[in-house]
Amino acid sequence: MYEGAVQDLIDELGRLPGVGPKSAQRIAFHLLSADPVDVRRLVDALTEVKARVRFCDICGNVTQEEQCRICRDPRRSLSQICVVEEPKDVVAIERTREFRGRYHVLGGAINPIAGVGPDDLRIKELLTRLANGEVTEVILATDPNVEGEATSTYLARMLVPMGLTVSRLASGLPVGGDLEYADEVTLGRAFEGRRRINA
Amino acid sequence: MYEGAVQDLIDELGRLPGVGPKSAQRIAFHLLSADPVDVRRLVDALTEVKARVRFCDICGNVTQEEQCRICRDPRRSLSQICVVEEPKDVVAIERTREFRGRYHVLGGAINPIAGVGPDDLRIKELLTRLANGEVTEVILATDPNVEGEATSTYLARMLVPMGLTVSRLASGLPVGGDLEYADEVTLGRAFEGRRRINA
Repeated sequence: MYEGAVQDLIDELGRLPGVGPKSAQRIAFHLLSADPVDVRRLVDALTEVKARVRFCDICGNVTQEEQCRICRDPRRSLSQICVVEEPKDVVAIERTREFRGRYHVLGGAINPIAGVGPDDLRIKELLTRLANGEVTEVILATDPNVEGEATSTYLARMLVPMGLTVSRLASGLPVGGDLEYADEVTLGRAFEGRRRINA
Repeated sequence: MYEGAVQDLIDELGRLPGVGPKSAQRIAFHLLSADPVDVRRLVDALTEVKARVRFCDICGNVTQEEQCRICRDPRRSLSQICVVEEPKDVVAIERTREFRGRYHVLGGAINPIAGVGPDDLRIKELLTRLANGEVTEVILATDPNVEGEATSTYLARMLVPMGLTVSRLASGLPVGGDLEYADEVTLGRAFEGRRRINA
């Protein structure tokens, strides 16, 4: 509908996840009248990310070095590995400041419908890391959905017989939430995982 | 939260209109694992838009030439000008195939709260276009909201005394909509603008 370059930009923006045709148009016109310096900064950020960002040789997290910030940090315990699906899950867990071990990023979850099997995830790399016996506990922190649960179940079946302490993040009511708004499955899990209070 | 380039990209994406922190993160990780050719295409589209796109000397629409596609088209009538707020409104009206005249893009609407007055819009340029007497009808197609109505009222007061036929797009029920879901103002306008049927 638009002339050349404007339509090209709208088309490219519309290919981004979560950006529909209307948003693409809105963003394109915003950029069209934006300060060229701001657009330059966006272009540079895009170019830099593709040129400099890679995946950590050890854990699979995003990094600009051979190894990520966490794997390079000698203060992080080598005895615990927390297994997550994506780099953004590392950031989410780091925000809690609850965990001082290392991570392992699988790069997804087992999802037969999308054609993702165990061999498409960084499971072989995880087993290599566990081989030297330094790791004693593996915390499975995949998403609490069908694919995440399947992935954790698959990993637990493999890791428990190796003599490791394997745990799964607790499911239950979100803190600050209302009990009446919790779905049945979550509420069921909260019951199942109830904790005794010793008064 | 992320290392260097990833965080820079998330920050830049988060500055775009309608892109929140979660969407920015999602888009950044999508681009991170996307084919470099696709990212290159987005970068090129951004660069091209800033380098090549400008505003039409005559109507203010976006173009890559001195004059836009519509102003260059000799088949478009010179006697009708349709006044709109933004280039995207030109595209919306072109889709209807109802109008064969020319456009005039104001670049916004009068909005005292946002500090946009008549002098910030391309009204002087509109008056210049009307000076040679070729234009006989002006269709005011600003948005049907407070700012758009104010802008059309302002323009009508100026243009009607000049002897021009001035019209405003009809307000009423959207085609295909349900009467019970229409808001009172729209329904009121639909009543006010009711048309007699001659059976």
